[in-house]
Amino acid sequence: MLLLTLDDKSSKPMYQQLIEQIRLKIESRVLFPGEKLPSTRRLADQLGIHRSTVATAYQELWALGFLDLSPGALPRVRDRTRIATAQGRLETGIVDWQQIVSPAAAAMWRTYRQNYLEGGQPDGQPVISFRTLSIDRRLFPIDSFRMCLDRAMKEQGAVLLGYGARFGYPPLREYIARRLQSHGISITPQEILITNGSQQGIDLVFRMIAAPGKVVAIEAPTYDYVPPLLRFYGLTPLEIPVRPDGMDLSVLEAALQRERPSLVYTMPTFQNPTGISTGQAHRERLLSLCETYGVPILEDGFEEEMKYCGRVVLPIKSMDRHRLVIYCGTFSKVLFPGVRIGWLAAEQECLERLAAIQGFSELSPSMVLQAAIHYFCQRGFYDHHVGRMHRVYRKRMEAAIRALRQQLSPEWAEWTAPSGGFIIWLKVKAPASAPGDWKGFFRERGIEVAIGNSFFFSGSADTYLRLSISALNEAEIEEGIRRLGAALRQLYT
Amino acid sequence: MLLLTLDDKSSKPMYQQLIEQIRLKIESRVLFPGEKLPSTRRLADQLGIHRSTVATAYQELWALGFLDLSPGALPRVRDRTRIATAQGRLETGIVDWQQIVSPAAAAMWRTYRQNYLEGGQPDGQPVISFRTLSIDRRLFPIDSFRMCLDRAMKEQGAVLLGYGARFGYPPLREYIARRLQSHGISITPQEILITNGSQQGIDLVFRMIAAPGKVVAIEAPTYDYVPPLLRFYGLTPLEIPVRPDGMDLSVLEAALQRERPSLVYTMPTFQNPTGISTGQAHRERLLSLCETYGVPILEDGFEEEMKYCGRVVLPIKSMDRHRLVIYCGTFSKVLFPGVRIGWLAAEQECLERLAAIQGFSELSPSMVLQAAIHYFCQRGFYDHHVGRMHRVYRKRMEAAIRALRQQLSPEWAEWTAPSGGFIIWLKVKAPASAPGDWKGFFRERGIEVAIGNSFFFSGSADTYLRLSISALNEAEIEEGIRRLGAALRQLYT
Repeated sequence: MLLLTLDDKSSKPMYQQLIEQIRLKIESRVLFPGEKLPSTRRLADQLGIHRSTVATAYQELWALGFLDLSPGALPRVRDRTRIATAQGRLETGIVDWQQIVSPAAAAMWRTYRQNYLEGGQPDGQPVISFRTLSIDRRLFPIDSFRMCLDRAMKEQGAVLLGYGARFGYPPLREYIARRLQSHGISITPQEILITNGSQQGIDLVFRMIAAPGKVVAIEAPTYDYVPPLLRFYGLTPLEIPVRPDGMDLSVLEAALQRERPSLVYTMPTFQNPTGISTGQAHRERLLSLCETYGVPILEDGFEEEMKYCGRVVLPIKSMDRHRLVIYCGTFSKVLFPGVRIGWLAAEQECLERLAAIQGFSELSPSMVLQAAIHYFCQRGFYDHHVGRMHRVYRKRMEAAIRALRQQLSPEWAEWTAPSGGFIIWLKVKAPASAPGDWKGFFRERGIEVAIGNSFFFSGSADTYLRLSISALNEAEIEEGIRRLGAALRQLYT
Repeated sequence: MLLLTLDDKSSKPMYQQLIEQIRLKIESRVLFPGEKLPSTRRLADQLGIHRSTVATAYQELWALGFLDLSPGALPRVRDRTRIATAQGRLETGIVDWQQIVSPAAAAMWRTYRQNYLEGGQPDGQPVISFRTLSIDRRLFPIDSFRMCLDRAMKEQGAVLLGYGARFGYPPLREYIARRLQSHGISITPQEILITNGSQQGIDLVFRMIAAPGKVVAIEAPTYDYVPPLLRFYGLTPLEIPVRPDGMDLSVLEAALQRERPSLVYTMPTFQNPTGISTGQAHRERLLSLCETYGVPILEDGFEEEMKYCGRVVLPIKSMDRHRLVIYCGTFSKVLFPGVRIGWLAAEQECLERLAAIQGFSELSPSMVLQAAIHYFCQRGFYDHHVGRMHRVYRKRMEAAIRALRQQLSPEWAEWTAPSGGFIIWLKVKAPASAPGDWKGFFRERGIEVAIGNSFFFSGSADTYLRLSISALNEAEIEEGIRRLGAALRQLYT
């Protein structure tokens, strides 16, 4: 017989007292798995309570996994699986993730681990990093942005904390359209989709076109995140060599004829990793070739705003009368990357499809930061900041080029001298002895640089280094290039 | 002869004066396309300036697309393509996006347009929406969150505005791990990946496993964003019917044997759209089946925190000694969706691969909002808010169930009465006359509901309605259900 005592003076309902007592008996093994409990009628009679109270308690115990209930049979104690405590966890899992993960995802992970996971911390002198493309945190306009963020929350908190608008925060779309107009691009706010940084923009475009057998023409070298992403989506990258004046257009033309790519991905301004900007004539011819073959262009204007010397050559999108250019931009490379705000500008038919993929993948981006950035721009803080960045980086780039001339012999290397942005592309001339591990070689000598090979889809016979000055001030740049010079000197003597 | 006049008293450098004057002559068609310019030497002699000044100007004009330069030949004026002004844009684009967009993306867009784009604005009385799953904006803790956001920016602005940490803001990962421990889940912060809402978590898992021929077992009905996403990634959905106690496990077992799915996607708590929560025994058996076949489970705990009556049944993940459960959670369904913060909890080997895909797709999520949410949780605002939400929605759900009993005849429909969350699943019994367009039928009668068919991958013969009370207060719920009752009455009389 099941011994239970109910307290009708207790504030706890009867059925809860029942649940607790039976549960305690099961957990302490007074009641064993398999053991039968009395019927609801019998237990109710025994305790002098209503049948439905017992029934409710049994139902609850069933939901919690303590009892089996089946019509016409007595309730029976179950063998309840315990919670997996830290002690209870097995050393290794049961799932063979290599089998579950797709080959494409496995390959992506290998690339990621190989190229983007840092090795151990360097010891000794602090390393000067020419590797990161993040801009100098010391230049972030933190206080003014903080004020804008607070203002946006104060004025529109309830709206901003809800799900966002499709395509992004409308006033920011309007601002971006106006800004692009100042770059010669004729566009309406309806043709702007706000993305989580320009990386998401690129990802969405690739996902939109991905289908077996499709080909995408890319520059060689190119932004190192692009080839793994293309492969991941089953798209075949078609490498078009970059010459000193930009992508080799006769190679591209032959490829357009022969391979019929679905897209041409290009960075006409301060190309990553070479820093090369193409001239107006190159842009016209590229556009005209793509018009001829009806192939869209993904124009990555990631450093459009960072033209700090020389004249401005307008984006390809500015001449896009036939609307085949998908333009992608970002606030990350001139303001700060932490808000993750970029955009795509494209024909609406194309944009609708991109927005649908974005919608299914994350519902909507956050409006909070978009509204804050809009306020920041609208109040003129953005223009002011861009001006400041130009002044600062013009001097830094000059310092870098000057230091390269002073510290490196032309016998060792040659390099580009871009008119904006952060990147210098340096070709190392065949040294007497080349280190097996360039990355480690430089790290040991107190600097970090990006090694050129990761920017070529199918590798390169030559040794290139990408030097980014984005996170360094003049003193750091000068000291870093001194170390670079000293390191290279070792290879040529 | 080229007539130019330079002003050596001007503050403008000589080469810039040269550029401007030549450019003006080209734009005003004083110089025609094809026309030759003097050599650098000759123009320099003529103007009495240094040759390199002329060379610099010619280079710049070349970059801007005004001149052609080739070694040994005279500079020649180019026919420069004009900027595409609003007037210059053609009516229709040149690209056939149907050809460029993949069949999968085209299908996704069709689904999106069909199911998620609103029709025109309703006129007449304001519509009461049982359709949205967004929580009531009137309950957002705006002021306390705003304070936390400002505090986070003040204390760590420079770090937060940089690129984020891989896997997300570390203190928030710690908080989430502790919170999951309170749900019985034994997990370390290293096993948490922060995502842009739980939607991105689901998307990443599907992308990770996507490969031709792979199958994913889902509930029927299920969350309506899932089947289109599976199809988009080329994964075959395998529908397992939901019974009153949850997914039919004997059907699942047969499917595990026969079809070898790569994943089982389930929402054990307040399943969307049925509102059903499974009992402990069901969870154990589901886990044990998947252990037997070595198939991972994606457990969607989107409303885990919204259990506001009855006892708590712990997540499947709490029993996951073999680490085959990928758990996904979110702040969106109890706090607010606008910060777009969710998470995945999984074995580290699996998580690393998910993080790599996330990294290539958007570099990193924003740390700003993650830090603010962490501060919000750490200060106890989150616990306080969850308690408030329980009190409010317990009463709202009671009001809804009461109103349904009062306004609807059991002859017309039957419905679930969930012990938490926002969703009631209502089955309409065969009416005398069924409207062709259920959505329009209800809209005309002043309410919006989600129609059941969109939650079944392969449709359903029965008519179901999903009523969400998430955005409505008691008065609105009562009035809405009165309208629902009046609408249904028309169909049965």
